Amino acid sequence: MKDTDILVIGGGPAGVVCALTARWYYPNKRITLVRDIKDGVIPCGIPYMISSLEKPEQNAMSYSSLEKNKIKLVIDHAVEIKRRNKVVRMVSGDEYRYEKLVLAIGSSPIIPPIPGVEKKGIYPIKKEMGYLKDMVEAIKKQKRVLVLGGGFIGVEFADELSRLGGLEVTIVEMLPRLLARSFDPEFSRLVEEKLASQGVRILTNTVVEEFTGDAKVRGARLSTGEEVKTDCAILGIGAVPNTKLALDAGLDIGKGKGIWVDEYMRTVDPDIFAIGDCAGKRDFFTRKDAPVMLASIATSEARVAGANLYKLRVLRESKGTIGIFSTYVGGLVLGSAGLNEGTAGREGFEVVTGTAEAVDKHPSALPTARRTLVKLIFSRESQALLGGQVAGGMSCGELINAIGIAIQKRFTITELETLQMATHPWLTPPPTMYPLVLAAQDAAKRLSG
Amino acid sequence: MKDTDILVIGGGPAGVVCALTARWYYPNKRITLVRDIKDGVIPCGIPYMISSLEKPEQNAMSYSSLEKNKIKLVIDHAVEIKRRNKVVRMVSGDEYRYEKLVLAIGSSPIIPPIPGVEKKGIYPIKKEMGYLKDMVEAIKKQKRVLVLGGGFIGVEFADELSRLGGLEVTIVEMLPRLLARSFDPEFSRLVEEKLASQGVRILTNTVVEEFTGDAKVRGARLSTGEEVKTDCAILGIGAVPNTKLALDAGLDIGKGKGIWVDEYMRTVDPDIFAIGDCAGKRDFFTRKDAPVMLASIATSEARVAGANLYKLRVLRESKGTIGIFSTYVGGLVLGSAGLNEGTAGREGFEVVTGTAEAVDKHPSALPTARRTLVKLIFSRESQALLGGQVAGGMSCGELINAIGIAIQKRFTITELETLQMATHPWLTPPPTMYPLVLAAQDAAKRLSG
Repeated sequence: MKDTDILVIGGGPAGVVCALTARWYYPNKRITLVRDIKDGVIPCGIPYMISSLEKPEQNAMSYSSLEKNKIKLVIDHAVEIKRRNKVVRMVSGDEYRYEKLVLAIGSSPIIPPIPGVEKKGIYPIKKEMGYLKDMVEAIKKQKRVLVLGGGFIGVEFADELSRLGGLEVTIVEMLPRLLARSFDPEFSRLVEEKLASQGVRILTNTVVEEFTGDAKVRGARLSTGEEVKTDCAILGIGAVPNTKLALDAGLDIGKGKGIWVDEYMRTVDPDIFAIGDCAGKRDFFTRKDAPVMLASIATSEARVAGANLYKLRVLRESKGTIGIFSTYVGGLVLGSAGLNEGTAGREGFEVVTGTAEAVDKHPSALPTARRTLVKLIFSRESQALLGGQVAGGMSCGELINAIGIAIQKRFTITELETLQMATHPWLTPPPTMYPLVLAAQDAAKRLSG
Repeated sequence: MKDTDILVIGGGPAGVVCALTARWYYPNKRITLVRDIKDGVIPCGIPYMISSLEKPEQNAMSYSSLEKNKIKLVIDHAVEIKRRNKVVRMVSGDEYRYEKLVLAIGSSPIIPPIPGVEKKGIYPIKKEMGYLKDMVEAIKKQKRVLVLGGGFIGVEFADELSRLGGLEVTIVEMLPRLLARSFDPEFSRLVEEKLASQGVRILTNTVVEEFTGDAKVRGARLSTGEEVKTDCAILGIGAVPNTKLALDAGLDIGKGKGIWVDEYMRTVDPDIFAIGDCAGKRDFFTRKDAPVMLASIATSEARVAGANLYKLRVLRESKGTIGIFSTYVGGLVLGSAGLNEGTAGREGFEVVTGTAEAVDKHPSALPTARRTLVKLIFSRESQALLGGQVAGGMSCGELINAIGIAIQKRFTITELETLQMATHPWLTPPPTMYPLVLAAQDAAKRLSG
């Protein structure tokens, strides 16, 4: 029997940040972090192991900050939580006694029930360096690759694969367009045009009905009747929370299929917390269960849990996820925060939208100037900002975070119209054309018009 | 006698945006904009006419949006407001009758009372294309240039001048460091190092006591006793509001020397508004008069005035200026919003600060990754965000605006610690290291420690 005070299960961003946060708030506690993957990777960097990074190894997850902060690191795999004794049993047979247990056990890639999905050359995205290195090496030797799923992962993989040169890339998406859950159609079109210009074949409204070949995949039969040849396939259709450990221990599971937690990331057992992909999420706007899995949410939850393990000393809650994303496709940056026009409408919000376009430097003759497109979605009567989408150059990466901050504090149309912002020739559109302000103004005009 | 409904005096960003806003809100009104400079320039782009832009003409102010929006454009110069008759007399002798008058008459560069300041080769920064073209052409033929003033304008000029190659550039600043009003010392040092690495000679704690030479400047005698040779000088020490027209008409002037206005940019005469550099500003935190002159504030005020000319239909106020700036020096981006540690202390705020450093891509092996430094200043007891400073790559241009939004809605330490933000390998630091969150966490640690 090994003793610790705080036991964190999981070595992804949630586990790491929670352990570090706990160290800051509880300097005298013994903290142990158990992970079952020796060589982890930075989750969001996985697509970039194909082409942008010189070597896949550059995307390794670092654990040096844990060691520096006197957090004990163990490679093992938790198999049972004995809640009554406050003990976790590992696959090695080791047992750890805890005061506070944090489950940061992540998610597993969805393997769709498509006949032939088990064939060689078909890769779900696992967060393991060895597996991904082999995958990248194998794919680079092929002529044709099929990407299943047109969400962020699928789109980023298609982009990177198309940069290798000489590889035929096809992306297959069930919905009518790419990035359909996070963006309105005018933004999806920008991504589709970009990928098409890089030679990617985009098949929307399409599902794979069967993978063909012998032991190794040779093709895919589509719902359109077509059979496309392929040498390999990447499964980028999402993930499901890992909950077995929690379920077996009698913890509750929420409707979104993640482990049920309260505002402070506590499960029904007050000494067990769950954070990151394995934990249930609630939507910021409706409080409905919302299965959004992102490292940025995971780390936010980790900070809430890490601070609140022993006492709720400040109101440090997890307020529900707004859903905030950015991506980079062929040099085009896209960002989305909160509700889009489609999701807002489906939830029953009555909205007014505003759009604006501006060049991200001024005068626009400055080198590397790019167009920025902004769309804002407001509640029609209450005028609160519900969501925003941006497309353009690199500045959009933090611009979507500015919008996200405004959503989290429910900025109104008027507040955005009279926003004070820094503008600079090299860094932003001109103050006369700052797109958050102009998009709010556009919404105000539509409201009054 | 010419008749108009809305008369805007001034063709800078404030005048232009106010006229356009008024057009949107009052589609049936006749709007006339009078400006006295035929060929205006984009104010913030002036330093970049030296080197970054291929030709100074690329920094021309465009008035095409006014014509498209049926705003009458007149080149003339207002000399008298006859308030009783609601008439403005121009230097040409023309008179305009108005229902609503907007003064957007800007500021004038400060000409310091230094003996010899009138010599040829000494340039105050006037916002006129012809003048600036001549200035740029003349400077490019010189060997040595002296920049007076180490604020934003001086620093940006010094940066651009040093890029011309072959020009000896000296910057002279009265205060102990560059950008001292907007940044704390650790940020000033970054700018000083950058400019020094480009060969700029930086003289702080120094004033020019006399310009020497005959008709043309040949040197400057400094308070240190040194006499530096120079072929020309740029005066970048600030500007004063243009208020004579308002004073002569009996309008009030505020303690900050700008025209007094209320929350809706109305002067003491309810039919006369003042906006932009000529109008008084109040500090967001203390409500004291604060003489900040920036195109971004001017345009915000212009939008408030333009919407409220005939009625205050929505609470669209000018909430006091937080002071938000960004600049770009030798590829280094700096941003400041709200109070810094120095200004907060001098105002009597008890503060706690937090700092963080992170690489702006993840993994940091991605090409063009840069370090980002963030400092946040919070009120110690109330924990509200009072200010922030950033330094790093291009992403800092919108990062400071994200901080500005958080200041304007008084985010607390805890809210920033649990912020939801989009992170992406190409666009931001990793979620585990997002610097706004880490800086807030650092402040929380200092509070509790």
